[in-house]
This record gives sequence, structure tokens and C-alpha cells, in this order.
Amino acid sequence: MKRIAVSAGDLNGIGIELALRNHRRLSQQADLVYCIDRPMLEQAAALLDLPIPEDFQTTEYLAESFTIRAGEVDAASGRYSYASFVKAVEMAREGAVDAIVTLPIHKKAWELAGIRYKGHTDALRDFFKADAIMMLGSPKMYVALFTEHIPLRNVADAINEKDLTRFLIDFYHAIEDQISNSDQKIAVLGLNPHAGDDGVLGDEEYIIKKAIANAHQTLGKEPFTDPLVPDVAFVPHTRAHYTFYIAMYHDQGLAPLKALYFDEGINISLHLPILRTSVDHGTAFDIAYGNHQLNNLSYLNAVGYLLER
Amino acid sequence: MKRIAVSAGDLNGIGIELALRNHRRLSQQADLVYCIDRPMLEQAAALLDLPIPEDFQTTEYLAESFTIRAGEVDAASGRYSYASFVKAVEMAREGAVDAIVTLPIHKKAWELAGIRYKGHTDALRDFFKADAIMMLGSPKMYVALFTEHIPLRNVADAINEKDLTRFLIDFYHAIEDQISNSDQKIAVLGLNPHAGDDGVLGDEEYIIKKAIANAHQTLGKEPFTDPLVPDVAFVPHTRAHYTFYIAMYHDQGLAPLKALYFDEGINISLHLPILRTSVDHGTAFDIAYGNHQLNNLSYLNAVGYLLER
Repeated sequence: MKRIAVSAGDLNGIGIELALRNHRRLSQQADLVYCIDRPMLEQAAALLDLPIPEDFQTTEYLAESFTIRAGEVDAASGRYSYASFVKAVEMAREGAVDAIVTLPIHKKAWELAGIRYKGHTDALRDFFKADAIMMLGSPKMYVALFTEHIPLRNVADAINEKDLTRFLIDFYHAIEDQISNSDQKIAVLGLNPHAGDDGVLGDEEYIIKKAIANAHQTLGKEPFTDPLVPDVAFVPHTRAHYTFYIAMYHDQGLAPLKALYFDEGINISLHLPILRTSVDHGTAFDIAYGNHQLNNLSYLNAVGYLLER
Repeated sequence: MKRIAVSAGDLNGIGIELALRNHRRLSQQADLVYCIDRPMLEQAAALLDLPIPEDFQTTEYLAESFTIRAGEVDAASGRYSYASFVKAVEMAREGAVDAIVTLPIHKKAWELAGIRYKGHTDALRDFFKADAIMMLGSPKMYVALFTEHIPLRNVADAINEKDLTRFLIDFYHAIEDQISNSDQKIAVLGLNPHAGDDGVLGDEEYIIKKAIANAHQTLGKEPFTDPLVPDVAFVPHTRAHYTFYIAMYHDQGLAPLKALYFDEGINISLHLPILRTSVDHGTAFDIAYGNHQLNNLSYLNAVGYLLER
């Protein structure tokens, strides 16, 4: 059974409730250890009026205890969620677990706590000094982003042969084990409307084609498609052919993905020494500790992805 | 009953079959006149082995007759489809019909025929010397494009206060009659990831906000949203609030739209002296005259949109 560390996320949010409510179900498939100490867990469980499962494994002291206040942006809570995340990463780095799942943190709470990272992925890149690849998706469709959080104005100039070639090769190696059928191609999107219409609407597709050719040569096989027409790449009969997409920029991939599979989405960090998935939703402060029906699909998929690796 | 002219599209494609097969159903709702002459209609109907409905209204001679060859890109067929389109436009311009529906032409056939327009919309802009607004969609969701067929590299610079203000006002007037409830806003998308995150990921959202404020001032009402985060704008619970979206660029609007509603999509030309809709698919040369089951949703929606105006 795979051993997975789960970071607690911001304890003023819904993360710990997801962990408690789904433990019984997930514990049949994985050996889970939760990065939270006993006093904080007991406080959260009492507030939620939920029992703590007997086999709910926790960690030792992580950071200063604080009083949970549902939905509050709070430095102490930010500090704790960061410590929980760091603990999960350390366990994976040391080989004490096979992979980690991160529950949602609150960026502003990290900022109040003086943590200099904008989020998990940002921190992981720095911890490992590695170009983590961000992939989002659901079991039906995954989208990796070649450029991420940059202005749209800067996207076209970021498309260069060297970096894209590297990205394609790294990406292929990161998901190689998930491609069962060598006929199944990885969809690479063009940049421009109609994928440039042979250069009439932009010429970055020529760069993308070169990078694909380079990657094919290095890999000694041809797993990538030609640059696809972006607005047709996600229609049902195209989708039927692909599980993995490479988007040139943030909204090109994420707008169709979220339109289709919003509730079940997860975030995966590839090309790191450790494997990490995350739910693709936030702390949901507005419904935390409110006895609401939580949508647990994203959390279940985040764990499920790791079990299939 | 509304009177609608239907242009025949490229007769080597599926357009005329759609017209013949759906006539009975549509003729109960609209008074349709088809821009095709009798000899060409008879040739097509014979090839399709379909009867010509008794009340199938046609036009006089349009262009030189030719032998229909299913799926062929052909200058004579291009010439004919252009003449059919021009006839439909003329009828609308003269008030002989209330609106027009265009069946798919083949761009290459137009080119072979020496026609200097890339497509219907391009021609309409020139005929009327007007900035037609291109809107695509299905009855569930419509997306108007502020920029259309330009390289992604040029999109950010095309976002300027003056043109966008004009566009918003023109768009509002063009669809005003379709907004039944004044609480129902028109969704305006931001340009950058996370709609710029307060300027961190791009600053065009400030321009978009100014244009919205200008339009609201001119209109004396506030039909537009603030710039929405593009990758969240199309998730189910956001979609529930909007029918009309304004996208800053081609793929931003069309990739989510087609991912969701591909088969039923139509193309609408707004802000012209005449009202025109079109199917949002091509000539389907591969299945023309092949006795295939055609998807008629787009054609039915193209007519349906006009009936509701």
C-alpha cells in the first residue's frame, strides 16, 4: 500500500474537514499520514463535531497552536499551514512517504505569516531548485502549462525553441508511465487562432513545430501531435483522442479544462524529485466549519492520481 | 411569419441537403426562400434522391450552372455559392426578407473563383462598410469577439479604451432586445491570467474597466460585469449567471464555447443593417451526398435565433 503524506492546509478552511470525512474511504487504498499535531486535530474535530478515526495518523508538534476561527485570514494559521506543508515535503524527500497531497492554503495568510512564497508550486521550485511542470486536470483530461503566471502580452515572446524542446522532453519523461498505448499522442496546442493558418495569423507555430521535431529526435519516438488549432482541440470528437494536452499559456488550457471538469480538477507538480498533487480549489472560507455538503471529488482525485503511479 | 432568405452554400457540400431535409420542420415557423435556381436545385435533389417539397421557394438564375461533384473544391461552385450569398444579402437589403441564414461556403472555392473575400463576414463588412460584430454561440451561451483573426502577439496592444468603449456600446444595442431581465449582466472577460491579479500579471484590465465605465455612462445603465477571471468565467456556477460573454480574443472565447457546445453552435453577424446567422460548421465535403446522418442542430439554431428576434 502506498504511503502518502497529507498536508493540512489552512486550518481555518475546509481542508481538515475533507481529510476527516474521507479518511475511512481512502484508508482502504492508501496508508495516509496527516501533517497535523494532535492538539490542533482535536480542536478542529471538536469544532466540526466529527470523531477522529482510530487509525488517523498524525505528526508531532509542527508550529505554535492557535485558536481556529472559521474563515479568518490569520498569520498563525498561515504559519501552521506552511509548517504542515514543509513537513509533508520533508517526509517525501527522506523517503518516509511515497508522495504528498496538499490541502488548500490561503496565500494571504502565508503573506501575513511572512512566508515569501506565493504558493505550494512556487515553494517547491525553490526547495528543489527545479523547473517543476504544472499540470492540471481530471482523470479524463490533463493540461500542462508551458507558460503560467505571466501577462498575455509576454506569452508570444516566451515561445522559444530551446525552452519548449526542454519542456516537451521533461514532460514526456514525467508522464511516460501513464501512456499505455504508444498510438496515444500528447496534444500540443498552437499559439494563434487557427494555429496560425500557415503563418497568416502568427508564426509561432513554426517554432512549436521545430521544438516538437527536436523532442522527437531526442526521444527516438514521436509522442507529440503537430500544433493543434486551439479552439477545436477541446471539442468532443478531438478530446476523444487525447488525455494529455500541452497549452502554451494559462487560460488557453485552463479555461476549456475548467469549463468541462471544474469540480473534479486537481493540480499536479511534475518533474520534481517528489510527486505532489493538490486539490484545485481554495480554502472555501465561506463554508468552512459550517456543516455544508463538501464536494470531495477533487480531493479523492488528488489521492487517486498518486495511487495509480 | 418571418421571411428568411437561405443562401445555398457550396453545392458540392452538405448545405443543400440540410435545407431540403429540414424544410418541412422549419417551414412551419418561417417563410423561407432559398437562393438557388430551379435547375441546380433539381440536380442536387436528384443526386440526393430527395423530393423537392412543393412549397420550396427558389430564386431565378443566379450564376452559370455546373455539374455538382460531391466534395470537390471547384471554381464554378465557388462562383455559384457567392452569387447565392449576394442574392440573399440583396433581398435583405431591399426588405424582401427580414433576415438571412447562410449555409457553409468553401473558402478555397471562393479563392479559385476569384472572389476577394475570405468569407461571409469579411464580405458583409465590405458590402455595408460597417464594423460587424462577430458573435458565436448556442441558445445557452453566446460569445462576441472584440478581436478576431489576429496573431496572439498583437492582442494586448489591440485592447484600447476608445475601440473597446465603442464595441461595448454597439454590442449592447445589438443584443439589447434579447436581455429580458435587467439584472442579467453581460460578462466581460479580462485579458490576463487571473484577470491580472490587480496589475501583477498584466494591466490591460484597467483599460477594460475604463471602457466599461465609459459605456455605462453613455448607456445610462450598467449592463456589463467587471473584467472576469478568464479561466473561471466558463465554469458551471459562473455560466449559470450569464448568456452573453465578450471575449478579448478569438481562442479565449471560442475554445470554452466549442468545448461545451460544439455541435449546436451558430455564427451571428451583429451591428449591420441586416441580420445574418450562419451554421458554425463547414461544407463537410467528406460526407456530402453520401446519405449520412447529418447533425442539423446548428442549422436549426441558426434559423431559430432569427425567429426569436
